[in-house]
Amino acid sequence: MFTPKRVYLDYAAATPLAKGALNAMRPWLTNSGYGNPSAIHKEGVAARVAVEEARLSLARTLGIRTNEIIFTGSGTEANNLAIAGSVHNFASTSDLSQSEVITTAIEHPSVTKVLQSLQQQGLTVHHTKLDDSGIIDTNYLQTLLNKNTTLVTFSYANSEVGVIQPVRRISRLVRKYNQAHGTSIKIHVDGAQAPLWLSCDVHALGVDMLSLDAGKCFGPKGVGILAKLAATEIKPVQFGGGQEAGLRAGTENVAGIIGAAVALQTAQADYKQCSTKVAAVRDAAIIHILKEIPNAVLNGTTGTDRLANNINISIPGLDTEFATVVLDKQGFAVSTKSACAGAGGGASTVVTAITGDPTRAASTLRISLGPDTKLSDLKRLAKVLKEHLEKMHDILT
Amino acid sequence: MFTPKRVYLDYAAATPLAKGALNAMRPWLTNSGYGNPSAIHKEGVAARVAVEEARLSLARTLGIRTNEIIFTGSGTEANNLAIAGSVHNFASTSDLSQSEVITTAIEHPSVTKVLQSLQQQGLTVHHTKLDDSGIIDTNYLQTLLNKNTTLVTFSYANSEVGVIQPVRRISRLVRKYNQAHGTSIKIHVDGAQAPLWLSCDVHALGVDMLSLDAGKCFGPKGVGILAKLAATEIKPVQFGGGQEAGLRAGTENVAGIIGAAVALQTAQADYKQCSTKVAAVRDAAIIHILKEIPNAVLNGTTGTDRLANNINISIPGLDTEFATVVLDKQGFAVSTKSACAGAGGGASTVVTAITGDPTRAASTLRISLGPDTKLSDLKRLAKVLKEHLEKMHDILT
Repeated sequence: MFTPKRVYLDYAAATPLAKGALNAMRPWLTNSGYGNPSAIHKEGVAARVAVEEARLSLARTLGIRTNEIIFTGSGTEANNLAIAGSVHNFASTSDLSQSEVITTAIEHPSVTKVLQSLQQQGLTVHHTKLDDSGIIDTNYLQTLLNKNTTLVTFSYANSEVGVIQPVRRISRLVRKYNQAHGTSIKIHVDGAQAPLWLSCDVHALGVDMLSLDAGKCFGPKGVGILAKLAATEIKPVQFGGGQEAGLRAGTENVAGIIGAAVALQTAQADYKQCSTKVAAVRDAAIIHILKEIPNAVLNGTTGTDRLANNINISIPGLDTEFATVVLDKQGFAVSTKSACAGAGGGASTVVTAITGDPTRAASTLRISLGPDTKLSDLKRLAKVLKEHLEKMHDILT
Repeated sequence: MFTPKRVYLDYAAATPLAKGALNAMRPWLTNSGYGNPSAIHKEGVAARVAVEEARLSLARTLGIRTNEIIFTGSGTEANNLAIAGSVHNFASTSDLSQSEVITTAIEHPSVTKVLQSLQQQGLTVHHTKLDDSGIIDTNYLQTLLNKNTTLVTFSYANSEVGVIQPVRRISRLVRKYNQAHGTSIKIHVDGAQAPLWLSCDVHALGVDMLSLDAGKCFGPKGVGILAKLAATEIKPVQFGGGQEAGLRAGTENVAGIIGAAVALQTAQADYKQCSTKVAAVRDAAIIHILKEIPNAVLNGTTGTDRLANNINISIPGLDTEFATVVLDKQGFAVSTKSACAGAGGGASTVVTAITGDPTRAASTLRISLGPDTKLSDLKRLAKVLKEHLEKMHDILT
């Protein structure tokens, strides 16, 4: 049987573990690298030093201080900690009826679901308006700010349609509001999709908190990071030993943390070059796909407001989940939407929110490129997809 | 310079990663094993299959069903989920003033601190009595049960003094109470110290929930397990994608989960033989140490109620944190108390609770053995410790 060469195009869902990251992890998976970083003997101290060196490296990568890094067990946990941690810090009791959070309708479940759980405790959640490519309406956002606002939380770049939000503009606007009104509204950004393609300099972004996920930028799965400026106070959501300055209890995942720091450093060292290169492939592929498949429509925006590696199209009427399976058989790994939103079944809430079109939302296809994705492979994908569409057409008519 | 051979005696804090576990993890750290288990393409399906095979293996190891396994990011997280999850499930609102939990004063911080956080929401926490070796007074525990009791939570085996609780007796007693009074009080046991030395058959133990930590039984750090019977309902504490049946959001740590299942399986396959062998070494070492160091006192109990690998002594008046450093220089990695309780500084709350003696609590030394620890090495440790004591005596008098 002919097995077609695999073309992995789901980098938004998961990335391979880079050799450099794995090599750095290796001594902590083998040999004597097994100490508990909280222990004071040689094995413990070695693990502690390694964790703190990783923290220092990561702090430099993100342009912040070492005490502004919290290692977690996933990007999801980083989002939970940032959001629930700041809401609970703002409210003195478990009654959150005096607190408000501003977000969007196109966030990842690790943002929307934690907000829903806090709403049950009385939190008010406002969804700011978006334009039809998914970009936040900053003028409208401004009208939602008030003295009860605790937090503004949104994704740096959307995991499904790849829209990049005007983070600097929003953070400036919120800081200006804080200065004028004596409030201390915090800004949290879910940056899970960012490291390979966008600057993660926390101060340049102007945010108070930035969530990252090592498993989305060639680091190990099971390691998240919450970058949190020292002036931003949050409450822990997980309790136990005082690890991570009391904000994330649990024995440190030493090897994972070390791999995460290497992955983030590598990603940020290369992001400009990498995104320029991949955006060119993406743009050519979008033009090619839309030409080959005339009834395909692009979701999200074009140009610099789109994540360099994101292609998201709808083919109204097509069962794209089945198309994903067909493409998979032909060697192409793509997705319909975010893996965390349930890869199978259901329309995309993101595309529903920005287009209001249920047919379009039910027929999405997300193609997320890697640093070395070739245009020729994407053209082959377009060909396979086109043939599949023709076949479907023959069957259906 | 002469570097003494290292003798690692802090297996209660952290264990090496077993070769078998690492080998099983390897394909998921390299090659094509990087798919997101929620994705429906080949790479995703392969990861999903591997996670579910690990779940099946672990379910068999623990004598439960696959839908009764929840993978978390640490033993700490498993404890948080079990405790906060069941308390919040019991109470319909965030007001917990009608809920009561029964525990002991010698639990790990990942139990005590989560209970403290719930107390701030109104939860009543009762501490059952213990005898002077730390064993739960089951008669007293019985008097604490009432219609508001949500949960009874305690450690299977204490991480500091190694006392093994009469889990079966307590679970029988609670189940009997439930039958007589129509209550549905749940039993949660923190089993982090158990897998290498004790049976982790959930039904034989009679508990509803059992927390485990892969990093404490030759598995990878960063993976915890909550075994939870299907009839026991809990609320999630971390929100996002619907992973782990909606109870633990976040992309699965595929490699870690696979390593954890192998480590647990290996530990449970060997625990009887291993604990018999190591308990004999432990007993001989205890006799030797108490003979060599007459002012040393053993904390906890002796015989079968003591974890096979645990030695915990106090040497009243001695700065055991400094002794730990001296022993470390001579090649012995030991601890004063639990790493999560802060290896440096402060008296042991566990020894305080069971002895009421602050001098004894401030001078603990925990020596936790591995499967291959040699009596000769423990005798050498006793010699070094004795010499250190004599030196201290010379200096002090």
